[in-house]
Amino acid sequence: MFSKDTYVARRRNLKNNVKQGVLLFPGNGESSMNYKDNWYPFRQDSSFLYYTGINNIANIYFLIDIDNNREILFGDDPTPEEMVWTGAVEPLAVFAEKSGISTVKSIRDLPSFLKDQKQKGRNVHYLPPYRSEITVELSTFLDIPVQEVHNKKSETFIKAVVNQRSVKSSEEIKELHKAVNITAEMHKYAIINAVPGKTEKEIAGDLQAIAIGGGGNISFPIILTKNGQYLHNHATNAVIEEGDIILCDCGAETAMNYAGDMTRTFPAGRAFSPLQKEIYNIVLSAHNTAIEALKPGVFFKDVHLLASTKLAEGLKEIGLMKGDIKEAVAAGAHSLFFQCGLGHQMGMDVHDMENLGEQYVGYTEDLKKSTEFGLKSLRLGKSLESGYVLTVEPGLYFNPFLIDSWKEQNKYTDFVNYDEIEKFRDFGGIRVEEDFIITETGSQLLGDPLAKTPEDIENLKH
Amino acid sequence: MFSKDTYVARRRNLKNNVKQGVLLFPGNGESSMNYKDNWYPFRQDSSFLYYTGINNIANIYFLIDIDNNREILFGDDPTPEEMVWTGAVEPLAVFAEKSGISTVKSIRDLPSFLKDQKQKGRNVHYLPPYRSEITVELSTFLDIPVQEVHNKKSETFIKAVVNQRSVKSSEEIKELHKAVNITAEMHKYAIINAVPGKTEKEIAGDLQAIAIGGGGNISFPIILTKNGQYLHNHATNAVIEEGDIILCDCGAETAMNYAGDMTRTFPAGRAFSPLQKEIYNIVLSAHNTAIEALKPGVFFKDVHLLASTKLAEGLKEIGLMKGDIKEAVAAGAHSLFFQCGLGHQMGMDVHDMENLGEQYVGYTEDLKKSTEFGLKSLRLGKSLESGYVLTVEPGLYFNPFLIDSWKEQNKYTDFVNYDEIEKFRDFGGIRVEEDFIITETGSQLLGDPLAKTPEDIENLKH
Repeated sequence: MFSKDTYVARRRNLKNNVKQGVLLFPGNGESSMNYKDNWYPFRQDSSFLYYTGINNIANIYFLIDIDNNREILFGDDPTPEEMVWTGAVEPLAVFAEKSGISTVKSIRDLPSFLKDQKQKGRNVHYLPPYRSEITVELSTFLDIPVQEVHNKKSETFIKAVVNQRSVKSSEEIKELHKAVNITAEMHKYAIINAVPGKTEKEIAGDLQAIAIGGGGNISFPIILTKNGQYLHNHATNAVIEEGDIILCDCGAETAMNYAGDMTRTFPAGRAFSPLQKEIYNIVLSAHNTAIEALKPGVFFKDVHLLASTKLAEGLKEIGLMKGDIKEAVAAGAHSLFFQCGLGHQMGMDVHDMENLGEQYVGYTEDLKKSTEFGLKSLRLGKSLESGYVLTVEPGLYFNPFLIDSWKEQNKYTDFVNYDEIEKFRDFGGIRVEEDFIITETGSQLLGDPLAKTPEDIENLKH
Repeated sequence: MFSKDTYVARRRNLKNNVKQGVLLFPGNGESSMNYKDNWYPFRQDSSFLYYTGINNIANIYFLIDIDNNREILFGDDPTPEEMVWTGAVEPLAVFAEKSGISTVKSIRDLPSFLKDQKQKGRNVHYLPPYRSEITVELSTFLDIPVQEVHNKKSETFIKAVVNQRSVKSSEEIKELHKAVNITAEMHKYAIINAVPGKTEKEIAGDLQAIAIGGGGNISFPIILTKNGQYLHNHATNAVIEEGDIILCDCGAETAMNYAGDMTRTFPAGRAFSPLQKEIYNIVLSAHNTAIEALKPGVFFKDVHLLASTKLAEGLKEIGLMKGDIKEAVAAGAHSLFFQCGLGHQMGMDVHDMENLGEQYVGYTEDLKKSTEFGLKSLRLGKSLESGYVLTVEPGLYFNPFLIDSWKEQNKYTDFVNYDEIEKFRDFGGIRVEEDFIITETGSQLLGDPLAKTPEDIENLKH
């Protein structure tokens, strides 16, 4: 936990922004795997955590009554007989005290408390739930049909939270550096150990161990694959072979739930093939071009298009694309090879605040999120501000299903040399990803630098 | 997957038992961590998997229409543009074929199909859901209020599934051996590596890596703790110190979701203290006594009480308990030190079929589950049958909260020497657990034997 002052100040700021009503923060519950009491690792809701600092306790709610200047934590301490299972747990009152919250009530008091607010005609604001349990609870507590819960989310509340959480404080930056350094350790391990004969899952397991040993957990499911052409292809029991290039996209989150997110692509054997190195250097060049463009006031959508242009230029040089590259990118032809976005905000969530809605988090009233293939997967488009933290992750992906589908439809034949692409059907995919904080004048890398050029990666393996 | 014949035979058997109506099997969906698309590892529902063999595909439903002798898999293959993210996926039709299911329909056809059955007044059987998403889906598809979904579960269906899944086939036993052997590897690693200076989570991470590298995952959250007195105390960032005894309760599940579950307790340093060894040997003696009693026709509740008696006798010998031990156990006094059950069934779930309801799985109409402290946590009470797989896991736990609470209430003062217990306040807890298959004449250990006596454990560390 940060200091009490941090949480008190965050809540004061939030109250000043939302101005009236009741703000409801459901804490997450346990999540069942194959029966009710067999749980996935507990993950607190990030907004709950941001405003209270209370982690690792399930089934608690927090509430701010702005109009009456009350803050209440709803929850129950375990009984001695429950502590037979759970062990010693600090009382909620201690957590409330550390967070500067004055009142603790039983969770049993929550439904009647909320009913009372409703009867008084008061506005109960909540953020859009992303877990079904919470949707059902909100439906019950606030007497809203389950299907209506999402629609009745509070836009005012969402916008205030997004504004606040987007700009990272110096104490948050420290946690993010820590998360990215654990993440870099995972990548260094993968580069050295993901060698022929190992399965993808063996390496992925070891990477998760590094994240867990770092005090928290993985920040998202590990992508460790010889099939990097599929963007979110998780580790399987496939055996790594000589000649494979391995795409590793993974991250740790700290005990306070701050995330890291990096990608490295490297040869399973000792060295890249000349062709692999050629494609790698196109991606790296786009990556470096994007980083140089980062600064306050720049639209991330423009950085995305700049990197896309760089990728397309590289593809033209080796004969996979043709024609006017500016026109090709404007038309979206490059998205045959780069189907996703250049990056996203990162913080207490690896895709920061994605639960609040991408339009609110990455775009503005004047800049709506695109619905086109490729651009629709760009999670951040708006103008950057000092204190934003984001990823830069261009890539080139040779997806045989997409190639066949577009070729059959004669899509972008002015810009794409489908015949040339044939020899890349089994190439795979390459991505290079790092995390940055936007400063007053540009950007700064999060974490210590890790091998990034083909040469440095090969050296790390030797 | 097992052979097609296996799944066809399992379903034939089930249809013969339930006799009429429609049997609905919801496959599990993805489970969200901190936003909708950031997922925990996918875990298929075990009954779905048992009857179809289809793993690792989310959001599919299976349905058996007994009366019309139809079997339908509801789901959708990804489009080429979706395969940008997911990668190459075998079509559902291929899985259906491997499982002997004749028909595949779009998941979009499911609601109207079910509506149609309902209008025809047909009986749609379902098992009790344990994930909120499925509850909401059943509520919507079958037009039942969310709060009523659990109550309207099919008892006939539950009983038929329990009967079938309780008795393990030889191909299942092979998978269980595999799961327990990976589990034993985890324990061997822990005994050797959980040494002073490491954190609990560092070791727990490494254990999870072994489970993942084994092709599946952990079968339940890893308990790796210097505070073994708390029964389900998960690994924390606490640093292991000289003199600690470490309780490790963990298990792997295979790629086919068969589970292992073992416990070892061992010194962090090179050797047990004399007192630790003394308590350990009481637990071990109860463990061995219980194993000898396992055979068809014996009530597991009686084995539990036999082991409890053995524990209590040991505690009397060292002065922690007193009086008539048979009376003490009958009264429940021993549950100050052994607060849980001796074991549970194990199979595709580590607590096998716990989602179907413990009364159905572990008890019978004539033998209801107890509501008393201690016995209420015994998940299996009924008479054993050849083919059952179960754990044997007695333990002694010195929980200061419980000791203080019972002492204050003067509970069991005829049987408990509260003054003597004082010096055990910081002792911790010891459990020894292994997995067994009930044979025609007795039982057989699952997996290869692993060091179990204090001496063998100390030798493993050297």
